[in-house]
Amino acid sequence: MPLVQIDLDRSLAERLGQQISDHINEALVEGLGMDPTDRFQIFRTHAPGELVFDPTYNGVDRQQLVSIQILMVHMYPADTKFAMYDAIVDRLKGIGIRPEDVLISVVENGFEDWYAGRSRS
Amino acid sequence: MPLVQIDLDRSLAERLGQQISDHINEALVEGLGMDPTDRFQIFRTHAPGELVFDPTYNGVDRQQLVSIQILMVHMYPADTKFAMYDAIVDRLKGIGIRPEDVLISVVENGFEDWYAGRSRS
Amino acid sequence: MPLVQIDLDRSLAERLGQQISDHINEALVEGLGMDPTDRFQIFRTHAPGELVFDPTYNGVDRQQLVSIQILMVHMYPADTKFAMYDAIVDRLKGIGIRPEDVLISVVENGFEDWYAGRSRS
Repeated sequence: MPLVQIDLDRSLAERLGQQISDHINEALVEGLGMDPTDRFQIFRTHAPGELVFDPTYNGVDRQQLVSIQILMVHMYPADTKFAMYDAIVDRLKGIGIRPEDVLISVVENGFEDWYAGRSRS
Repeated sequence: MPLVQIDLDRSLAERLGQQISDHINEALVEGLGMDPTDRFQIFRTHAPGELVFDPTYNGVDRQQLVSIQILMVHMYPADTKFAMYDAIVDRLKGIGIRPEDVLISVVENGFEDWYAGRSRS
Repeated sequence: MPLVQIDLDRSLAERLGQQISDHINEALVEGLGMDPTDRFQIFRTHAPGELVFDPTYNGVDRQQLVSIQILMVHMYPADTKFAMYDAIVDRLKGIGIRPEDVLISVVENGFEDWYAGRSRS
């Protein structure tokens, strides 16, 4: 039950939102071995100025900010995470989103930290 | 100091936002023993297409997505969390929100990870 | 790579958004020793009623809610966090935002939980 939260410019979302959604989901399936139906994504679209970034941080030429936050269960080694980041970035690059503009952040919780449509008790 | 972030359809928020807010707060009071005044909620309303989900994941018939993220201090056993989820879902069901459409996710931090209106130092 | 998410009233963001952005960044530089270019902020602006709070919780007189969520690597002792909160609140006070109205919450992850514009592999 990863929950993916994507913050991006409104114009980019209007143009490519559906493709971004599909590509991120495929990348989680590939990178994490996730069930493809385990798809929960929240798109938050922004007006100019709401996404603030430095164009140079980490030694890259950043032109915009596409923030992808992934909340998922603590169970993956670092190498799996790195492969998943690359899978996301590669796919987005294929639709014209520059790797330099992507910020991915992972937050982890436990299996007991989810309710997904039905009770366990 | 739980912080509750609710992402839902704009039309649902307009129709039931106040009741959803009240019911979630009451459920945290009941489920976690929370002080009823310890109420911090952020509603984020969405246009069609911004909340992406699979209608079948976890073996339920999902028709929309009501995402409830709860950031709270790490101090509750799993059973308490499960009871809290049930308390939320039961109350929302009472106002016509299907349990199948609810996604609850918990993220935990420590007591030192909050500033709520006044300094400790 | 802290990621800072600010939820605030739309009118406040229009009036003081740029200053809030600058002051929070300076406070992270001062409080955490952060690289000033390590600036990633997401502003989410809200209509009345979307930010729900109790005006009395924690013994303060709260008039509005300015929520500042900081996602950062787990590496700072509690005292450093407290100093950072004070640095944020002091600066915001200087532009007319009451400390009582500020809610800061920290979530932590690891170094391996970030992708910021280029791959590690």
